[in-house]
Amino acid sequence: VTEDIAYSRLYFGPWYRRSPFFEATRRAGAKAYDIYNHMYLPGLYDDAETEYEALLHDVTVWDVSVERQVEISGPDGFKFADFITPRDLTKCDVGQGKYVVITTEEGGIINDPVLIRLEKDRFWLSLANSDTLLWCKGVAVHSGLDVEIQEPDVSPIQIQGPKSKDVLNALVGPKVLDLGYYYFLETKIDGIPVVITRTGWSAEIGYEIYLCDGSKGEALWEKVFAAGKPYKIRATAPSEIRRIEAGILNWGSDITLDNNPYEVGLGWLVDEDKKADYIGKEALARIRKAGVQRKLVGLEIAGDKIQVWLDRYWDVLADGKKVGHLTALTYSPRLKKNIGYALVPVAHAKLGSRLTVKTPKGDRAATVVRKPFVDPKKDLPKS
Amino acid sequence: VTEDIAYSRLYFGPWYRRSPFFEATRRAGAKAYDIYNHMYLPGLYDDAETEYEALLHDVTVWDVSVERQVEISGPDGFKFADFITPRDLTKCDVGQGKYVVITTEEGGIINDPVLIRLEKDRFWLSLANSDTLLWCKGVAVHSGLDVEIQEPDVSPIQIQGPKSKDVLNALVGPKVLDLGYYYFLETKIDGIPVVITRTGWSAEIGYEIYLCDGSKGEALWEKVFAAGKPYKIRATAPSEIRRIEAGILNWGSDITLDNNPYEVGLGWLVDEDKKADYIGKEALARIRKAGVQRKLVGLEIAGDKIQVWLDRYWDVLADGKKVGHLTALTYSPRLKKNIGYALVPVAHAKLGSRLTVKTPKGDRAATVVRKPFVDPKKDLPKS
Repeated sequence: VTEDIAYSRLYFGPWYRRSPFFEATRRAGAKAYDIYNHMYLPGLYDDAETEYEALLHDVTVWDVSVERQVEISGPDGFKFADFITPRDLTKCDVGQGKYVVITTEEGGIINDPVLIRLEKDRFWLSLANSDTLLWCKGVAVHSGLDVEIQEPDVSPIQIQGPKSKDVLNALVGPKVLDLGYYYFLETKIDGIPVVITRTGWSAEIGYEIYLCDGSKGEALWEKVFAAGKPYKIRATAPSEIRRIEAGILNWGSDITLDNNPYEVGLGWLVDEDKKADYIGKEALARIRKAGVQRKLVGLEIAGDKIQVWLDRYWDVLADGKKVGHLTALTYSPRLKKNIGYALVPVAHAKLGSRLTVKTPKGDRAATVVRKPFVDPKKDLPKS
Repeated sequence: VTEDIAYSRLYFGPWYRRSPFFEATRRAGAKAYDIYNHMYLPGLYDDAETEYEALLHDVTVWDVSVERQVEISGPDGFKFADFITPRDLTKCDVGQGKYVVITTEEGGIINDPVLIRLEKDRFWLSLANSDTLLWCKGVAVHSGLDVEIQEPDVSPIQIQGPKSKDVLNALVGPKVLDLGYYYFLETKIDGIPVVITRTGWSAEIGYEIYLCDGSKGEALWEKVFAAGKPYKIRATAPSEIRRIEAGILNWGSDITLDNNPYEVGLGWLVDEDKKADYIGKEALARIRKAGVQRKLVGLEIAGDKIQVWLDRYWDVLADGKKVGHLTALTYSPRLKKNIGYALVPVAHAKLGSRLTVKTPKGDRAATVVRKPFVDPKKDLPKS
């Protein structure tokens, strides 16, 4: 559907790892892959709008094994996990998860994983695209904490869309329907060990099934598709359209190591009253007091559907001068608007600010608007 | 030339960074890219054998801006750098470089960069494909050392092949001809700040030019091609054929976090008499004493040219059972042989051991042989 999409060729090689579902995604017709955490992430099967419609109305399966897990365990597991994030993990029960940021001493965002607490002192971080295993192992070296940091054999898939409840119910029974947002359960699907979380990257109703035995990828994939058949289940990529409508951020483009949580609207992941020390605490307090210099804002871009794929950051101008850059762009079929995010100085971040986006096919007027562009489902509170 | 190459589509996106030479590589005809350190690495322009011939006989230019630098500086810069590698950096002068491994407490290899010492307490690590910046920043947190860790605006290109001396001489004059292997100089090319190192990933005569101002990529590229025109300079990808002939290893396939230096033939990067403490010292001493369980060996694989690209690790069998895996494979046009590396138990690692490689088109007999397959140039000692 998008006329002008820039792409190249990606050779498979032994330097990238394959997910337990890789062959299944090939059979299901994946025709593009991204490289994410040194693995292949299916990037497109059909076209983006068809996949979006399936997500809105039915149920979709995403191979996101690239969400590698960092397991933190050992006698000081809690202390360590609590030390690497600004969220107060005393408020995270065993069986519960939290969306967190992992920050540097300067307050920069290393990653924005979903953290789940499996035991009092055992946690998993479900990673975005950076080698946060290395960060954690590095921090552990001199920490004086008795902790083990490793990557377990765990590979998640996301089951997203309104019919996901029916699929999960068919797979593991009604206990899954009682799961609160960001809670999880450990169970088996016909003997295959899994963790099921009530999470997702779509703002639709959804779950993730963490496969806990990499040799069972084909078997799990088949069972999921068998259970989903009555609901028109299909394999898709994560939906850029839907996640941008929802104001969900992508680490690596909307968020980078160069950003602090306050700049990108993730200040709510910094618990100001957290008593324990953690990496970045001083810097974040300083930034909070001083205020940020720039902000990631929602943009509505005027005119017809932009037919060019956002292949890099595009310049954002004010009064003819570059002031920032566009980090995300999509056309929302239901809003019938071009929407996206831009990182701009606070002077240009107010709602209603008028900006210009430099597209490869000419300049477009743009206006700063509120995110999310589409209200999240009522049963999806922040967590 | 290779009949059966597995590849897919890679969409460009704002989540991958572009090198200062990216547009130049597109114009030069790069038709495939890898993702490496979150950036695009040109993977092929022409065909692999044509590019190999240019490297052997003329001179080639590789955009390896993906070799991101970690800069270690500050009053304790030396102490920190010396603490993260088993090499004894008291033996590395200012102006000199070393090939090093960065190791975990367990002795696993995080990265195998070229380290250069710019000042007494200032170093750069020129990285292979892992977020070693995060490792270093993590280690620094509790280290008690007064050190700054950052990624500078530095983007290397490699100029490799017998005519590279002529090109460098034309660019910066004869002082470059005096550079010893793994030494470097800081200079300017028509005002463009660069560091020139006598290093490379080809075992041919070669240099790297580290561009120290990302806004000058186009200008530097043009100057290099102008200087190289009499020598038939051309843009190519790093040559898999040549580097495998030379026994050079690739982090991410031949070396992973799961390997210690002794397993992969990098024991010479562990200075056994190093007095200072460093991360992994105890583990490496233990491994050295106990001996390794497996080894990365050279393999000669019988029969005609294997027409299938190594798209993943292939199984290596002994007596019909899987004992290891093939990490690298190429056909050497001058040896007229299929050669590669395999990680196998020590029981199967002796020279002359007979093994079987499971290719997608049937089993092939293989023999363990010495690496490198082609002798390195006499003026390229280990360093």
